[in-house]
Amino acid sequence: VNFQSTEFAFDFNRILTLKFATLLTDFGLSDYYVGAMKGALLSVCPRAIVIDLTHETPPFDVETGAFLLLASYAVFPPATVHVAVVDPGVGSERRAILAATRSYFFVAPDNGLLSYIFEREAAQLRVYHVTNENYFRREVSATFHGRDIFAPVAGALLNGAAPEEIGAPIDDYIKLPALAPTRIDERTFLARILHIDRFGNCVTNITRRELCVDEMAGARLHIGAREIRRFQTHFAAAQGDEVFAYWGSAGFLEIGIFGASAAERLGVERNREVRLICHR
Amino acid sequence: VNFQSTEFAFDFNRILTLKFATLLTDFGLSDYYVGAMKGALLSVCPRAIVIDLTHETPPFDVETGAFLLLASYAVFPPATVHVAVVDPGVGSERRAILAATRSYFFVAPDNGLLSYIFEREAAQLRVYHVTNENYFRREVSATFHGRDIFAPVAGALLNGAAPEEIGAPIDDYIKLPALAPTRIDERTFLARILHIDRFGNCVTNITRRELCVDEMAGARLHIGAREIRRFQTHFAAAQGDEVFAYWGSAGFLEIGIFGASAAERLGVERNREVRLICHR
Amino acid sequence: VNFQSTEFAFDFNRILTLKFATLLTDFGLSDYYVGAMKGALLSVCPRAIVIDLTHETPPFDVETGAFLLLASYAVFPPATVHVAVVDPGVGSERRAILAATRSYFFVAPDNGLLSYIFEREAAQLRVYHVTNENYFRREVSATFHGRDIFAPVAGALLNGAAPEEIGAPIDDYIKLPALAPTRIDERTFLARILHIDRFGNCVTNITRRELCVDEMAGARLHIGAREIRRFQTHFAAAQGDEVFAYWGSAGFLEIGIFGASAAERLGVERNREVRLICHR
Repeated sequence: VNFQSTEFAFDFNRILTLKFATLLTDFGLSDYYVGAMKGALLSVCPRAIVIDLTHETPPFDVETGAFLLLASYAVFPPATVHVAVVDPGVGSERRAILAATRSYFFVAPDNGLLSYIFEREAAQLRVYHVTNENYFRREVSATFHGRDIFAPVAGALLNGAAPEEIGAPIDDYIKLPALAPTRIDERTFLARILHIDRFGNCVTNITRRELCVDEMAGARLHIGAREIRRFQTHFAAAQGDEVFAYWGSAGFLEIGIFGASAAERLGVERNREVRLICHR
Repeated sequence: VNFQSTEFAFDFNRILTLKFATLLTDFGLSDYYVGAMKGALLSVCPRAIVIDLTHETPPFDVETGAFLLLASYAVFPPATVHVAVVDPGVGSERRAILAATRSYFFVAPDNGLLSYIFEREAAQLRVYHVTNENYFRREVSATFHGRDIFAPVAGALLNGAAPEEIGAPIDDYIKLPALAPTRIDERTFLARILHIDRFGNCVTNITRRELCVDEMAGARLHIGAREIRRFQTHFAAAQGDEVFAYWGSAGFLEIGIFGASAAERLGVERNREVRLICHR
Repeated sequence: VNFQSTEFAFDFNRILTLKFATLLTDFGLSDYYVGAMKGALLSVCPRAIVIDLTHETPPFDVETGAFLLLASYAVFPPATVHVAVVDPGVGSERRAILAATRSYFFVAPDNGLLSYIFEREAAQLRVYHVTNENYFRREVSATFHGRDIFAPVAGALLNGAAPEEIGAPIDDYIKLPALAPTRIDERTFLARILHIDRFGNCVTNITRRELCVDEMAGARLHIGAREIRRFQTHFAAAQGDEVFAYWGSAGFLEIGIFGASAAERLGVERNREVRLICHR
């Protein structure tokens, strides 16, 4: 086989190079929005393999979108392009941005949606203002940049466009309040509920860094009037319907009940304050 | 490389030709129906790339399915096969049809689901009655033609079957009432709400053709006792919680509120009458 | 073309061999769980084509998961790897298992989720205890084996790993109560509602084997105080809003109403007892 044949080599490489994109939006699944984004992306890069992270981010909830992206982006193959669209400011002066980290690209509105990626990937991060209209759909609506800008730009990146071709580097992109809990005193952290999952498990923003120990020995959580001291490694280890803390799969401390909703039992909603008191 | 080698050329072409199919149904996502359709399609055409438009069309709601298909089909790469199944008449004498336009194939029950495609693509449209059982699953149930007829026929089209092999041309296919608003007098159109999206935005059937102007200057909308005169280019331009009209991403005039549900605020449901009064 | 070239032949085969995986879970679509499973699978086997069966299995409902898998697995191309995760025991001593049938692989927790596959595929079935950590993610959490064990093992199978490399054969895997109705006397079977679908149709566990006849001639169903004698081949054949039985697309007798929810009308929930009385 003569790999020097230009025509052949070109096609062969295109076949062998897989092109992954993920989509995270607040579009829901009952409209045409997600399908249209995929169509727009595939029209630019037909070989793209598009995977849904979720489209059920609560409408306009940038923080939940930021958390869900943080919790899943790193499990994808290198060179994946992550497209995130929770975008109440669509059509306004808010910028579209592109972030490049060691292993991934991210395309999103500049409204904080990539904040936790910025924190986690600070060591090797470049952010660009997406401005090159050659990479947009021919007609750009003022209400659906997911289809008209973000998806086509993701397709262009998968096709090999360099970030520098898409826009100029910036460093004044918007950041949400920091993800980590705030230290109040030697023993106390002010934390919060980042997310409540389908099962009613409550994901806090507490990591092993705050807790110092692996299994919460001596530590306790306060949510409202409730104190939680129990820790379990997994759900089925729980005694009856006790409320307990455990390490969740995204690396954060979570609060759960085996076979029931902790959020309902505790009457907790997203963003609720949690105090972590470490006994050392 | 000798591209004349029959065996090689054949496989190589199969690799290089991408085969897109989309699915739009009212099956929801909590049953096995969508998965089974994909399995049936992939069993016929393993190289198909299958994209969901939506499966949350309200049960039996042919008009909403027709709108959602209209709003998204044209963003897909040429040669995509669109499969649409909202099919209360499954198993009865209602026909299965196949429509070929300049750029796409459509497979659906003959119940009006493709009506708006017929309107939009009237210039280059051929419709066929799907009858050739060689392209169906071996056993055809009377209750799930999505799996047993529509998906396999889509797979056959992706494999290169000609429409003429699948059935005979027809021109008495079923059409829904026309999509466009009705002109009542020189200044007034009788329009309606086509769809209410996840965010509560109300999509009307009014296009630039009726409005004549780009930004509704002087025109107004009447929904029940409510009058809407405000127009915005995008959501974030709105003042507070005003109700305003804007051009939606499917090319229709929509009614929205920034960060809230216009449908809830106005107490509007799908199919509600809207009067457009143009001041000229 | 020299197909003996090792490098070329290798890549070419990889291109031509399609690798299908399906996912069935109770994770819902509003969290990062399904996306993360796909990322983990694609990181092991980038060429995998991943299809969702459903992720809306009711939380922890192993029986419904088992039914939905039974109803759809056989429509997929041979060599598909089906991954099923309804897993309240995650992190505990419950085993992970792998089942190999004539045409498919199945990866799941050992909690009965594959029971109906075991029944249906009993003739050619081997089951393995998944233990080889070389095929797991580097760090295995105690709360998300879908991402850390089941998806990577599926990827390994798609890459060509033999079941024997993944674990040792076992035959003491867990089974749910048998799927088939119980015979009470010459004429009576005790059956149950396996599933209620999106439309409110009630799927029983009655098959043609119990009914003996094709159209329920003379037979009747009792649900609570209600008796059902009507049989229809398809929905649109029904008279008005009568409740009728029909053969559903999964091979079971179902109970429905044309254009309305039989489950609501009958006040029936999953697992409700149904008596089948055959008049012969």
